Amino acid sequence: MRKFLNDPRDTVREMLEGLADLSPGLALLAEDGVILRANLPPYPARREVAVISGGGSGHEPAHAGYVGPGLLHAAVAGDVFTSPSVDSVLAAIRAVAGPPGAVLVVKNYTGDRLNFGLAAELARGMGIACEIVVVADDVALRDVVEPGRRRGIAGTVLIHKVAGAAAAAGMPLEAVAAEARLAAAALGSMGVALGACILPAAGRPGFELEPGEMELGLGIHGEPGVHRAPLGSARDVAAILLEMILTELAPDAGSSVALLVNGLGGTPPMELAVMAREALAGLRARGLVVERAWCGTLLSALEMPGCSFSVLRLDAGLLARLDAPATAPAWPGSGRIPEQRHLVVPAGTPALPPLGEADPVLRDTALAVAATLEAAESELTALDAAAGDGDLGISLARGAQAMRALPEGAWVDAPTALTALAGALRRAIGGSSGPFYATALLRAARGIPAQPTASDWAAALAQAVKAISELGGAQPGDRTMLDALHPAAEAMAAELEAGHSGRQALLAAVAAAEAGAAATAAMRPRLGRASYLGDRALGIQDAGAAAVAIWMGALGRSVE
Amino acid sequence: MRKFLNDPRDTVREMLEGLADLSPGLALLAEDGVILRANLPPYPARREVAVISGGGSGHEPAHAGYVGPGLLHAAVAGDVFTSPSVDSVLAAIRAVAGPPGAVLVVKNYTGDRLNFGLAAELARGMGIACEIVVVADDVALRDVVEPGRRRGIAGTVLIHKVAGAAAAAGMPLEAVAAEARLAAAALGSMGVALGACILPAAGRPGFELEPGEMELGLGIHGEPGVHRAPLGSARDVAAILLEMILTELAPDAGSSVALLVNGLGGTPPMELAVMAREALAGLRARGLVVERAWCGTLLSALEMPGCSFSVLRLDAGLLARLDAPATAPAWPGSGRIPEQRHLVVPAGTPALPPLGEADPVLRDTALAVAATLEAAESELTALDAAAGDGDLGISLARGAQAMRALPEGAWVDAPTALTALAGALRRAIGGSSGPFYATALLRAARGIPAQPTASDWAAALAQAVKAISELGGAQPGDRTMLDALHPAAEAMAAELEAGHSGRQALLAAVAAAEAGAAATAAMRPRLGRASYLGDRALGIQDAGAAAVAIWMGALGRSVE
Repeated sequence: MRKFLNDPRDTVREMLEGLADLSPGLALLAEDGVILRANLPPYPARREVAVISGGGSGHEPAHAGYVGPGLLHAAVAGDVFTSPSVDSVLAAIRAVAGPPGAVLVVKNYTGDRLNFGLAAELARGMGIACEIVVVADDVALRDVVEPGRRRGIAGTVLIHKVAGAAAAAGMPLEAVAAEARLAAAALGSMGVALGACILPAAGRPGFELEPGEMELGLGIHGEPGVHRAPLGSARDVAAILLEMILTELAPDAGSSVALLVNGLGGTPPMELAVMAREALAGLRARGLVVERAWCGTLLSALEMPGCSFSVLRLDAGLLARLDAPATAPAWPGSGRIPEQRHLVVPAGTPALPPLGEADPVLRDTALAVAATLEAAESELTALDAAAGDGDLGISLARGAQAMRALPEGAWVDAPTALTALAGALRRAIGGSSGPFYATALLRAARGIPAQPTASDWAAALAQAVKAISELGGAQPGDRTMLDALHPAAEAMAAELEAGHSGRQALLAAVAAAEAGAAATAAMRPRLGRASYLGDRALGIQDAGAAAVAIWMGALGRSVE
Repeated sequence: MRKFLNDPRDTVREMLEGLADLSPGLALLAEDGVILRANLPPYPARREVAVISGGGSGHEPAHAGYVGPGLLHAAVAGDVFTSPSVDSVLAAIRAVAGPPGAVLVVKNYTGDRLNFGLAAELARGMGIACEIVVVADDVALRDVVEPGRRRGIAGTVLIHKVAGAAAAAGMPLEAVAAEARLAAAALGSMGVALGACILPAAGRPGFELEPGEMELGLGIHGEPGVHRAPLGSARDVAAILLEMILTELAPDAGSSVALLVNGLGGTPPMELAVMAREALAGLRARGLVVERAWCGTLLSALEMPGCSFSVLRLDAGLLARLDAPATAPAWPGSGRIPEQRHLVVPAGTPALPPLGEADPVLRDTALAVAATLEAAESELTALDAAAGDGDLGISLARGAQAMRALPEGAWVDAPTALTALAGALRRAIGGSSGPFYATALLRAARGIPAQPTASDWAAALAQAVKAISELGGAQPGDRTMLDALHPAAEAMAAELEAGHSGRQALLAAVAAAEAGAAATAAMRPRLGRASYLGDRALGIQDAGAAAVAIWMGALGRSVE
């Protein structure tokens, strides 16, 4: 089986040990498959009515995850999808019940009813008063069996909460049981599966679904549902589930309900959130007030893909029980939801400063670069196709087109022009070249004065190179555009430091970029998709570095 | 696809809307795929350094689930497994950053680095100071690429926590970034997949695994791992993961670490708990002190089956950041674990009262019943095989054997005998007959005096019938053992009320049981497995009711 297990016979015990290892509030009843609260007052002092639940394993985080103050006192775990033994249930009762007795919350399955029922009878024989609360919330079987024969599914978790809160409030045994039974009668659940789980005993799924089918009225043991139907949209499926539940519960318009959207194990939070959105909208559209809502995998069927909705009709007393404090590893919190979705409107684009006259040198230089890039499209495409993904030529040609389309106001001064170029390239170029060029231009724009000297340009180039290295994590030698840019920036700074002119410095930078680009033909790619090519890239210049040499060449010609 | 979706193009937006609908603390930045805190102080008053993360969707509950006080200020969600756009990241920065600036926590993927990096550059251009913290915790790529090229995976959630806590403590931008970077450098993660997820764009899994294989060094986008190996036991797999991480982190013996056991989506809590147990044991066996541990699905890859371990080397400052208060929908709590597993020893069996002499009438009557049941084995097997699961004959024969094996002390008086019989039948009989008979006998034993009159026996029989009805939820007419028991109890009570003798009352009860059993041949089964037979059961007596008539007949003969 594709599972993380040691000996499968030890899995339930090891799972419970893992839970106890992780939770300071949980203790393990040795050898009995029982998780109980670690901090119970010693018997018999000050014990409240004990609330105990459980059943077969495979429904995690149920039931052990709901052991804690305000919730269960103990959970009994049988083997996967197998009711725990009478002895385990009895051991749990004896471990946590005091003089006020115990309420056993039992999902309506024959095995669980028998084993919890007999354990209760044995406990009564030992002088421990016990009440059994049977949860049968599955409305899928509405037209198939009488209400008493329905299954207990995910809504049971809410009954744990109600019973646990009533017990924590100090209510006597009969009152705790009566509250839990009233809540169970006000509860309806309906599920849908998109597949089965693998039954560990059989090693195969309990049923097979074709893609595009769903199984309505799922069980929580990998068993088939009540009927099969074509899988509709989330909205359609949600409408079917709500209709079944609300037909049964028949809440008055304007009345209050709680909602539980439960994942069966294999359905990711993304889909559950989409379904919760539909469930909330559907309940509100029917005029109901959703006071509390939870969404998550609260009672699962191993890794089964599917979900269920549970709706609980609320009155003030029941709501208070749901709101009472509870801390257990898997209890999903208060369930408080906003009355409506909080929406924030994004900040607007900042106003642009008033524009001046275009600087013709800046504009003409940029347009010359654009023309050169357009002329180089096929050369760059060929290089990039040989050792890359082949889109660099067309990407930079698109960028050139966007440069041409910039308004006159883009060219008033150097920082404005660099910023405008960044925006144009960012919008026009997909893939990684766009962000790299845009970031470099923005960084260059940041420190540069309106009328830069050659030293200012050199400093801006150095900043741009730094920004690209930061952004992509590349270093010279990695066979990227940096292998042309970095030597160019170094050469420009060195020429100026040696007292040469800005024109000489730029020409030196161009020569260094060309040499750097040529050198990439001997480098193995180490980053991005090209790295998968390995030695096959050898002998071919890196297209990104070649592009740098090409547009720097255009800059060089513009000052000549 | 087998998913709960509306139009797939709307899924990410609808998911975020669902999250916002469920969480009073979250707000949605309209149209930008950004979830932010709903309760931010208005700009610019009293804003702390903003901590922002995000990436492609499909990693839920990351990243939106970690938005809240003490954690993230905003999360940016791209399409499934697709980096969010620069505009979305910029919108998030502008929405939540105040004068102290923003830290962007970015998982080390090219797309995320580019888009978050360029957005930061744009924000800086607007006067918002930004620092980028890159998380590259995946040690799987240790021997494949240099550290800077490793991927960011589940450990990233712990870096969110550290950065969020440092920001909430009022630290300035550079300090928040520095703390987060130090934590990222002390973090290692290693994952394993048992299958791929379905890539929504492709509609099929990213790779295929044979049963019995695992993919070590998984990515979190359904991409293949680093190498494939035979799937070992949970213990073996855990040892491999820990070995990879600890070789990299090289913590000193006796030093403190935090542990995160993360599910990839398709691995149920049962398996994660087993893996957490192994991880804790493995770390402790290596002499490390596990100060905090979390286990759950914190950063997923849709419904991929797999898990990862993350280990964070702790110092006191880092531990304080992990412990700082945080409330976000998916933050898994304090991570405090017990120093050792809490084990509770079950209560012992209560001491038995001292025994007296066996009552020969009780013993002989019981042994006569046992002999009759043994003689009826093949008759009951035939009836149960015709309309049931065929095991009633052998079950009751086993029960008879257990009755014979009871010690003399079992027969001292009626309540002792009934209790002893309950225990014998409970242990000897599987299926549902054992619990039913045991519960009935225990209930009968509860009120009965040591030397019962005929009326006491009649009352005990009525109590036993009630217990069976409670336990199984059956009523007369449901074609069960109650259809013999219930008329027998009624007849016995009626005879005694009419002033007849106990002997007459018992014989009337036997006759009523026989008539009741015969009448079941005309009943449709409504409960249990027999209910699937429907009309096919007609004409055959219910085996459970027939068995009641048989052993009551033995009781009748014993008084004649």
